[in-house]
Amino acid sequence: MKKLLKGLRQFKSNYFSTHQELFEQLSHGQKPRVLFITCSDSRIDPNLITNAEVGELFVIRNAGNIIPPFGAANGGEGAAVEYAVQALGVEHIIVCGHSHCGAMKGLLKRSSLEDEMPLVYEWLRHAEATRQLLKENYTHLEGETLLEVAVAENVLTQIENLRTYPVIHSKLYRNKLHLHAWIYHIETGEVLEYDSIRHDFVTPDENAMLEAYPVQCVLSLPEDVEDLLPGHRQSQTQPEVAEAERDVMMPWLSSDQVARIRSGSNGRR
Amino acid sequence: MKKLLKGLRQFKSNYFSTHQELFEQLSHGQKPRVLFITCSDSRIDPNLITNAEVGELFVIRNAGNIIPPFGAANGGEGAAVEYAVQALGVEHIIVCGHSHCGAMKGLLKRSSLEDEMPLVYEWLRHAEATRQLLKENYTHLEGETLLEVAVAENVLTQIENLRTYPVIHSKLYRNKLHLHAWIYHIETGEVLEYDSIRHDFVTPDENAMLEAYPVQCVLSLPEDVEDLLPGHRQSQTQPEVAEAERDVMMPWLSSDQVARIRSGSNGRR
Amino acid sequence: MKKLLKGLRQFKSNYFSTHQELFEQLSHGQKPRVLFITCSDSRIDPNLITNAEVGELFVIRNAGNIIPPFGAANGGEGAAVEYAVQALGVEHIIVCGHSHCGAMKGLLKRSSLEDEMPLVYEWLRHAEATRQLLKENYTHLEGETLLEVAVAENVLTQIENLRTYPVIHSKLYRNKLHLHAWIYHIETGEVLEYDSIRHDFVTPDENAMLEAYPVQCVLSLPEDVEDLLPGHRQSQTQPEVAEAERDVMMPWLSSDQVARIRSGSNGRR
Amino acid sequence: MKKLLKGLRQFKSNYFSTHQELFEQLSHGQKPRVLFITCSDSRIDPNLITNAEVGELFVIRNAGNIIPPFGAANGGEGAAVEYAVQALGVEHIIVCGHSHCGAMKGLLKRSSLEDEMPLVYEWLRHAEATRQLLKENYTHLEGETLLEVAVAENVLTQIENLRTYPVIHSKLYRNKLHLHAWIYHIETGEVLEYDSIRHDFVTPDENAMLEAYPVQCVLSLPEDVEDLLPGHRQSQTQPEVAEAERDVMMPWLSSDQVARIRSGSNGRR
Repeated sequence: MKKLLKGLRQFKSNYFSTHQELFEQLSHGQKPRVLFITCSDSRIDPNLITNAEVGELFVIRNAGNIIPPFGAANGGEGAAVEYAVQALGVEHIIVCGHSHCGAMKGLLKRSSLEDEMPLVYEWLRHAEATRQLLKENYTHLEGETLLEVAVAENVLTQIENLRTYPVIHSKLYRNKLHLHAWIYHIETGEVLEYDSIRHDFVTPDENAMLEAYPVQCVLSLPEDVEDLLPGHRQSQTQPEVAEAERDVMMPWLSSDQVARIRSGSNGRR
Repeated sequence: MKKLLKGLRQFKSNYFSTHQELFEQLSHGQKPRVLFITCSDSRIDPNLITNAEVGELFVIRNAGNIIPPFGAANGGEGAAVEYAVQALGVEHIIVCGHSHCGAMKGLLKRSSLEDEMPLVYEWLRHAEATRQLLKENYTHLEGETLLEVAVAENVLTQIENLRTYPVIHSKLYRNKLHLHAWIYHIETGEVLEYDSIRHDFVTPDENAMLEAYPVQCVLSLPEDVEDLLPGHRQSQTQPEVAEAERDVMMPWLSSDQVARIRSGSNGRR
Repeated sequence: MKKLLKGLRQFKSNYFSTHQELFEQLSHGQKPRVLFITCSDSRIDPNLITNAEVGELFVIRNAGNIIPPFGAANGGEGAAVEYAVQALGVEHIIVCGHSHCGAMKGLLKRSSLEDEMPLVYEWLRHAEATRQLLKENYTHLEGETLLEVAVAENVLTQIENLRTYPVIHSKLYRNKLHLHAWIYHIETGEVLEYDSIRHDFVTPDENAMLEAYPVQCVLSLPEDVEDLLPGHRQSQTQPEVAEAERDVMMPWLSSDQVARIRSGSNGRR
Repeated sequence: MKKLLKGLRQFKSNYFSTHQELFEQLSHGQKPRVLFITCSDSRIDPNLITNAEVGELFVIRNAGNIIPPFGAANGGEGAAVEYAVQALGVEHIIVCGHSHCGAMKGLLKRSSLEDEMPLVYEWLRHAEATRQLLKENYTHLEGETLLEVAVAENVLTQIENLRTYPVIHSKLYRNKLHLHAWIYHIETGEVLEYDSIRHDFVTPDENAMLEAYPVQCVLSLPEDVEDLLPGHRQSQTQPEVAEAERDVMMPWLSSDQVARIRSGSNGRR
C-alpha cells in the first residue's frame, strides 16, 4: 500500500501536472469509442498495451473476460455493456483474453472448484461452451497447449454471448458496431486478433479497411440481414430498385406491403 | 373432444393399420436427424408441411419458437435441445417462425401484457433482441408489415441464442451441426429459408449442396475456427503441413507446442 | 434435409392446394379448442394420431411432456399455457405421454445424467414427484414394466402441476376447463385416457358425457393415483383381485407384465 | 481502432522491449497484493493514477464500482473477489469511486432508466443503500454537490457489501485483509481515502501505520457514515463547527458547496 500511496503523489506531480488540460476537459464528460473487456489479471494494463490515452477505453474487467449471455446473470457485465453501447455509443467492442489465464486454468478443472471457490465455479458456467468444445475436440491436447487453445476459444465464445444482448444485436444489424476477439501474450507483448477469413488469430493490420474486415461477415450476422430493409438499402446507394428485384428481396411480403414499406422508407415519417 | 376421440379410432384403423411395420420398428427407438423448433400455434403441423414421416422430426414447440440463451431460463427448451443434440445426435436444427404469429404480435406491444399475461410478458424477454432491433431500425413500419419483419428477425435472433448452448457450440465447431432459419406462410403454404449470401429469405433449393451453403459461414462461426486445430486439418486432407504454414496457422503457439499438437493429432491418443 | 425440402414442395402442391380455403381462413386467426401437451419425441405426431385438422390443436412439446408447477421455472411452458387458456380460451388440456419415453427412462436413472446432460438433469426435477412415487411404491417393478408405470404416473403428476397455474385454477373452479391424461402406445397405435371414476387408464369413450368427468378428475385424482398401485389396493380391502379385473385395471400392460406385478405385489421380494 | 492497433505496435517496441525481464517473469505467475475495484469509466486508469507497475493490481471494473452483497447477484464481481482473496491472497481491497460518475448520476434518477436501460436500472439496485441514505439525509443538496456526496457515500456502501462475502469476513476477522474507500477526482488528479478515525475523506498519509487502520475501519464504519453528515453532527453535540474544521471534514467539496451544505443543515428542512 505504501508504494501505491506514494504513487498517487507521483502521478499528481508528474503525469497529471503535464496533462492538466486533458483532465480538465475530461472532467466535462467521456467520449470513449471502444469498450474493452478483459481479465482482472494484474498482468494486463489495457491502456498500456494499446498505448491508449485516458478517456479512450471504457473498461470491463472480471475473472476470465467473460460476458454471460443476455439474461443468464444479473451482475455488472450486462449493465456496463448496455451503458457503453446505449449511453456512450461505443463503436467497437474488444474481448481481450490473455496467455496463462488463471480463470481458464480453473475452467479446465472446473469441478474441483465447487467446494473451495463456489462463486468462481458458478461463474465459469458462462464459459461452459468453451469447456465442452475443448472436451470434445481437443482430447489430444493437455497442459500449456490446451490452456492456450482454451484462451483462444473462450474469447470467441464470449463474442457469441455478446451477440445475444439487445443493444448489441440492434447495432450490429445496421453495422454501427464491430466486435473484435483479441489475445494478449504476456511473454511476447504481442496481441493477436481473430481473422475470420484466415480462420486464425493473426497480427492485426492497422492499415486494413475496417469495412473490408471479413470480421463483419462472421462476427456480425446482422449486417447480412440489413438488406432485409428496403428503406435502408435505398438510403444508401441505389435510388431505384426494380419491383422484380424487390419481390426477390422480400418475397414473403405482398407487393402492396412492399409498396407501403418503400413509400414509408422514402421519408414519409 | 368428441371429434378428437373419434379421430383416435380413425387413426388406429386407417393410418396405423397401414403402417404397422413402421410403428413396430419405431417402438424400438427413434433416430431423428432434425430438431424442429416452432410455435405452439395450432395452424402449424411440422410433419404435414415438411411431408415428414413419423420418426423424422424431434419437435420443440412453445409460444413464438423462442429459445432463451444458455443459462437465461430453466424451462424445457434447453433440456430438449441438449437431449436432441447430445443424446440423439441430430444434425440439423430448424427454427421455424410463421406469419400472423400471436407471440410476435404480443412482442410488439409487450408492455401491455405485464398485467394480463405476466408469464407471456416474462417469456417475451427472450425475444427482446428482436424487439429492440425493430424499434431502432424499422420505425417507418407498422401493422402487418412490421409483424412480418418481426417474425423474420425473430428466427434470426433465436438462431443467435441457440449458438450459446455448449452442445451446439461444440458441434458447430466441427461442422457436425447445421442451423436453419425458416418462415412458414400460412396463406401461401410456402416456407422460406434464410440465405446468408443473398441476405434474404428465399425458397430453399433442395438441390443445393449443403456443404456449399454459405449458411455455414454466417450461421456457424465455429466452422471457421476449425482450422485452429491442426490435428483436425490433417485428419481431413493434407497429410503434411509445412512448419511455416503452421506457424502462420497458430502463431500464438511456440513451435514445440505446435510439434506436440501435430504429434498428438497423429493418432497418439 | 434434402428430403424435407422436397417435402415442402410436395405439401404445397398437394395438401395445401386442395385445402386453400382452410388456410386462407386460418390466416385470419386461430381458434383451437384444445391445448395438446406432449413429448418432443419424433415418433409422436399429435395431428396424425388424433386425426385433427390444422387449426384444432395448440401444441406444447418438450422432453417428457413436463409442465413445471407455477413459479418453478421460467421457460416457455407457463407462457404457452397462459396464452392458450387466457388469450385463446381453450376448453381442454391434454397431457399426452407415450410408451418408450426417453425422458422417463432418464428419470429412472436421473443421477447419472448430471454430468453428461446437466440441462436434462435439471429439467427432470419437475418430474421428481413421479420418481419418488415410483421409488416408494413400485420397488417390486423394473425395466420395461417400471417404465410403463413411470409414463402413466408422470402424466398424472403433470396434471397436478397444471392445476397450480392461476389461469387454470380459476377456470377449473367454474368448470370452464377440462384436464385429460393420455398415454399413446407407439406399438399399438392406441391411446388410453385416465378415467378418474374407474381409477384407471382406459380406452376413451367418445360417447361418454364429458361433463361427468372433470369435477371428479379435479377432486379425486390423488386418491386415484393410489388405487393405481395394485399392492396398495390389496393392503387395503380386497385380498384377491380377479385376473380379468386386473387386466381391465392396467390394460396397457401385457398379461405377463401384470403377472409379474401381481407376484411382486404379493410381497414375493 | 486504427489508433489502438498502432498503439499495440508502439507498446511492443517501446515499453515492452525495455521491460522484457519483468514480462518474462510475470509470465510465470501473478502475485498482486491489491484488489482494485473501480468504475468502467474511460477516464480512470488504475495503474496510471497509482503509478503501479504491471502485476501489482488485480482489477475489477464495472459501472459504478459496485459489488453486490454476497448472494445478491451471480455476475463476475463475486467470483473475482473470491479468486483475488482466496486464490491470490491479496491483502488490500480498494474501492475507488470518482467524481462525475455516470453511474451515480444514473442512481440519482434511477426510475427514469427502467425503460431505456433496464440492465443498468437493475444493476443500480445494489447501490440502493446509497440512494436511500441520500434521499433521507441530504434533502437539502442537489446537482453537483449531491453527486459528490453520492460518490462518497457509495464507496462506503460498497465497502459494507464487500464485508458480506465469506472469504472477506473471515480474513478481516484475523486482520489479514484491509479495506480502503477511495475517491479519485478527475479535475484535480487527487485521490482521497476514507479515514475512519477522522470520519472523513482525507489525503492518504503513506507514512501512517496501516496497522492502526483496519480494525477501526471494520468496527466503526457505520458510525462514521453518520458523522459524514454535518447536519446530523450538529444535532448531536458541537453546536458550531469552524469553517476550517469543516473544510478539513469535506476537503473534496468546494468551500461554497460546504457553505450550501452548512446552510442546508442549519435546520432549513
